Amino acid sequence: MRNIRLLIAYDGTAYAGWQRQRIQPTIQGVLEEKISLMTTAPVIVHGAGRTDAGVHALGMVANFHTISSIPCAGFLKGLNCLLPDDIAILQVDEVDADFHARFKAKGKIYAYQFLCAPIVLPHQRLYYTQVPKQLDFEMMESALSLLVGEHDFSCFEAAGSRDCSVVGGRGAVRQIFSASLQQQGDGWAIVLHGDGFLRHMVRNVAGTVFDVGQGRSSLRDFVEILASKDRGRAGKTAPAKGLFLREVIY
Amino acid sequence: MRNIRLLIAYDGTAYAGWQRQRIQPTIQGVLEEKISLMTTAPVIVHGAGRTDAGVHALGMVANFHTISSIPCAGFLKGLNCLLPDDIAILQVDEVDADFHARFKAKGKIYAYQFLCAPIVLPHQRLYYTQVPKQLDFEMMESALSLLVGEHDFSCFEAAGSRDCSVVGGRGAVRQIFSASLQQQGDGWAIVLHGDGFLRHMVRNVAGTVFDVGQGRSSLRDFVEILASKDRGRAGKTAPAKGLFLREVIY
Repeated sequence: MRNIRLLIAYDGTAYAGWQRQRIQPTIQGVLEEKISLMTTAPVIVHGAGRTDAGVHALGMVANFHTISSIPCAGFLKGLNCLLPDDIAILQVDEVDADFHARFKAKGKIYAYQFLCAPIVLPHQRLYYTQVPKQLDFEMMESALSLLVGEHDFSCFEAAGSRDCSVVGGRGAVRQIFSASLQQQGDGWAIVLHGDGFLRHMVRNVAGTVFDVGQGRSSLRDFVEILASKDRGRAGKTAPAKGLFLREVIY
Repeated sequence: MRNIRLLIAYDGTAYAGWQRQRIQPTIQGVLEEKISLMTTAPVIVHGAGRTDAGVHALGMVANFHTISSIPCAGFLKGLNCLLPDDIAILQVDEVDADFHARFKAKGKIYAYQFLCAPIVLPHQRLYYTQVPKQLDFEMMESALSLLVGEHDFSCFEAAGSRDCSVVGGRGAVRQIFSASLQQQGDGWAIVLHGDGFLRHMVRNVAGTVFDVGQGRSSLRDFVEILASKDRGRAGKTAPAKGLFLREVIY
């Protein structure tokens, strides 16, 4: 069996997330359908993680096994022809038999894109969250820096996250390697690089960091929220549309 | 009667262009519907020009007359609530009775956005045209500079353009004040500022300038195409999705 790795970008707007579902369209479901069409055999595509409904990806990684002899360049061209234009295959490689997109991932980089503007322009609406009130970027940077290191991130965890994480067996403890604000297109992005993320973690971090930026929470509150391990104390879950999976690191 | 001016941005993807139509949704049609809903009276919205199906705007200007006493801030807030999120009202002002969005326009700035990349990312697909072959930007700049000044642009004119132009009564002669390449988000834009544009003119200029950039036409060819006044000699009409009406100048 060959083991084929895909580098994938998608606009998640029209999808009920990554994971295959019976009725609603999903990224995994569409990919499996088109690969099966090319290889004339059923296939299972393993993704590096399961993005939620409406979340985008610039660098999702997935792999599948096949006995097909279609060359990588053929998959690249063929899949990009067959797939709807909100899913793009950026790269196809044949990899070692033991490569697994999820189990071999050492980390991920997520970007949460936002605009600090009174009105979001129509061509930004699918990819940026609007934060109407002025933000204190220095305070937000300070809050983000408090996330770096190994912490129990229970306060930012939605229900049912454990089985989604890259690193299993250690509860809600994750390591964040870096957390910063970056200029991103017309707006900004909260960029988090970690060894794994709990369900809704980046969106919950974003919502809580927006509270700090808007002066609704202080840095001291932020420290206490993190220490409390209590989801009820953190900010709102920021909308899915601002979230991009930028990169999976192996 | 009050005369109300609107500054409008829209994502043209889902619309059959600006101009009201019976069945298909159009920007003018949706605006008139929502303004009528607010003022409880029929209304005609005059746009600065008619963008084609799929063309976007960052700064379309329009005006309408009303006896309603709704303040400008009320129209701004109310319309942005009522309108679908691919149309945004950026500004509302009460203007002199003689203001007319089309007849008073002195010029327009259009940007044609493109990416010179093997694959267009999904979140770029609605707003950039892909030019897969490498482009000679210096040659493109040179070609664009040849457009500046007053010329008969028949070679870039689609059928039926005359009644759409800002400046009437002089055939296909238009004045271009500036024409340049600018970096635009993840890609580039051909930016044209002129006193008026013929139908499909920017898209036909873009298609022809791409030919020059790809080496399919020389600068000499470009000069000859312009002089020929023959649409058959110019390049293809570039896709609508790359085109943005950036600004209308009064």
